[in-house]
Amino acid sequence: MVGRSLAKLLESRADDLYVGYGLKPRIVAVSDNGGMACDTAGLDCARLVRAKEQKGTVAAYGGGGHGGGSSSKGKGSSSPTAAEMAEAVSGADVLVETTPSNYKDAEPGMTNITDAMKRRMHVVSVNKGPLALAFPSLNELAAYNRVMFRFSGTVGGGTPILDYAKNSLSGERITSFSGILNGTTNYILSAMAEGMSPKAALQDARTKGYVEADESLDLDGLDAAAKLVILANWIMGMKVTMPDVSCTGIRGVTSADIKKAAKRNRVVKMTAACGNDALTVAPVTIPRDDPLCVNGTLNAISFTSEHSGTQTIIGRGAGGTETASAILRDLLYIRQGITSGAYG
Amino acid sequence: MVGRSLAKLLESRADDLYVGYGLKPRIVAVSDNGGMACDTAGLDCARLVRAKEQKGTVAAYGGGGHGGGSSSKGKGSSSPTAAEMAEAVSGADVLVETTPSNYKDAEPGMTNITDAMKRRMHVVSVNKGPLALAFPSLNELAAYNRVMFRFSGTVGGGTPILDYAKNSLSGERITSFSGILNGTTNYILSAMAEGMSPKAALQDARTKGYVEADESLDLDGLDAAAKLVILANWIMGMKVTMPDVSCTGIRGVTSADIKKAAKRNRVVKMTAACGNDALTVAPVTIPRDDPLCVNGTLNAISFTSEHSGTQTIIGRGAGGTETASAILRDLLYIRQGITSGAYG
Repeated sequence: MVGRSLAKLLESRADDLYVGYGLKPRIVAVSDNGGMACDTAGLDCARLVRAKEQKGTVAAYGGGGHGGGSSSKGKGSSSPTAAEMAEAVSGADVLVETTPSNYKDAEPGMTNITDAMKRRMHVVSVNKGPLALAFPSLNELAAYNRVMFRFSGTVGGGTPILDYAKNSLSGERITSFSGILNGTTNYILSAMAEGMSPKAALQDARTKGYVEADESLDLDGLDAAAKLVILANWIMGMKVTMPDVSCTGIRGVTSADIKKAAKRNRVVKMTAACGNDALTVAPVTIPRDDPLCVNGTLNAISFTSEHSGTQTIIGRGAGGTETASAILRDLLYIRQGITSGAYG
Repeated sequence: MVGRSLAKLLESRADDLYVGYGLKPRIVAVSDNGGMACDTAGLDCARLVRAKEQKGTVAAYGGGGHGGGSSSKGKGSSSPTAAEMAEAVSGADVLVETTPSNYKDAEPGMTNITDAMKRRMHVVSVNKGPLALAFPSLNELAAYNRVMFRFSGTVGGGTPILDYAKNSLSGERITSFSGILNGTTNYILSAMAEGMSPKAALQDARTKGYVEADESLDLDGLDAAAKLVILANWIMGMKVTMPDVSCTGIRGVTSADIKKAAKRNRVVKMTAACGNDALTVAPVTIPRDDPLCVNGTLNAISFTSEHSGTQTIIGRGAGGTETASAILRDLLYIRQGITSGAYG
């Protein structure tokens, strides 16, 4: 879904990206479960989206090496040869990695990313798995190969949380932070606060399509923990991975817990927190009027810094278009890095 | 107060600013109502703060041109000569303008800023007056003289609202925004929502020192309007000044208004909004669970963008230390611009 949103975004904004930022990306290869489309002359975004939506895979795009254009080809009639694929990929500047996150071995994202870096390609990842399991070593690999590694879309979706903490607060020392980084569990807890039973709230979230296929990623806090790892590495300079997070999900939260908190004018939220070198994901109670206390699927994070006090950013944490806009930000960053001459 | 906070901040962080950012600022001249201290070799921050706190003016710092050091001098015994002052000022790279804002003629800030720019000095201003009355022309003057003009501390205090919208959301189109940009009126409206009469709430805010000497700046929305003008110019590229804002303060808001809103689960807030080319400061009602709905003296602003949805930033909008940290951010930016070779 993210790939498709990105293709649509790049197409709809082609003119202003070129005029405003000098960005004219050429998509030379795209792959999905069903196969691959490639063309060193550049694939046509609209045609890619059409192939995916009508035939279920970009492999239906048709053969490569013939220039993009909109000429329609038979269903996979001339799929790219291995040589064409290798040629398209080997000449590329950037890999955009969008395969689903898993926190067991992080594949296939891990191999995609490390292979690309070794081939001196810059990498944009919205897949959290490889970062959660191996942020410090991926960062080293990128530095060793002198490539840029960006992952704005992994935390906060379209809300530029990573960039805010790193750049907008430059010159400032962030001492701790705490965030609501998983929209699904926040939706469930918000529904429970309005009186739903845990079971009904979960079912409601499932019906709305908020719950991941592997429910454990949301309910046991793994998704939030992965984001916490990324934040801790990126913002605090900690060299940590998933096993460093003390992680408790929301399965144990009862309606009684929520009522008890409400009596003290507090709400139960699953926060991902970093402070005193400890990383914790757990349901906690926070005051009802705390800016962090957002409802529904919103994400929120509060950074406490030495001199600027506590600052909170709130925004939608997910969504195809939002994540695509984060990828676009990363591509703009990489383009700037390339033209500045600092990178190959 | 801001100047003193800045002196303290620069002193307390001297080591890490030098190690982390290569920044080692030399303060060559400081002036206040009582006079001036200057020394081309650099003034000593701790001694400046002492002079101000003990004698009420930096003029008590003692003569310049003798190197900083901590040797104590008689009370203004050797105040700087006109020649020493001129020498110190003419060699400076940056003016940090911190005089109070006024929206009639914006003096003395306006003259300070334009004089400095004409002398090819970069300018950091936390004074909103000149920007509110003449943003477009000040911006042109800076470009003409090839100097940098920064003003992070004018909106949001230590919360980097301007930077966030400009940089963290780069590649994104902000279509509208709405913010609570004046902490004093927000404090009064919050107190009224808790049952205080308008009169008692105002008195409470006065007692706590939240209300400006010229109450009209807060109560009639002028402070919020000035910030709105700065945001509209900086973020939306509009060339506007104070007279372009339709501005209504909170003097007309009654307890009945607030109760009526509460019945519909809404709250009365004075927002500064930009949308459809219109700039408006006025008390409006917003839903109680809107992220913008912050209490007390907090500031909040929601940006709506084309692809990343609505994002809200919340933080303290004022305070000496917070504003000093914003000035420091601007100084770091300017240092980077100078070393990059883009500026003289």
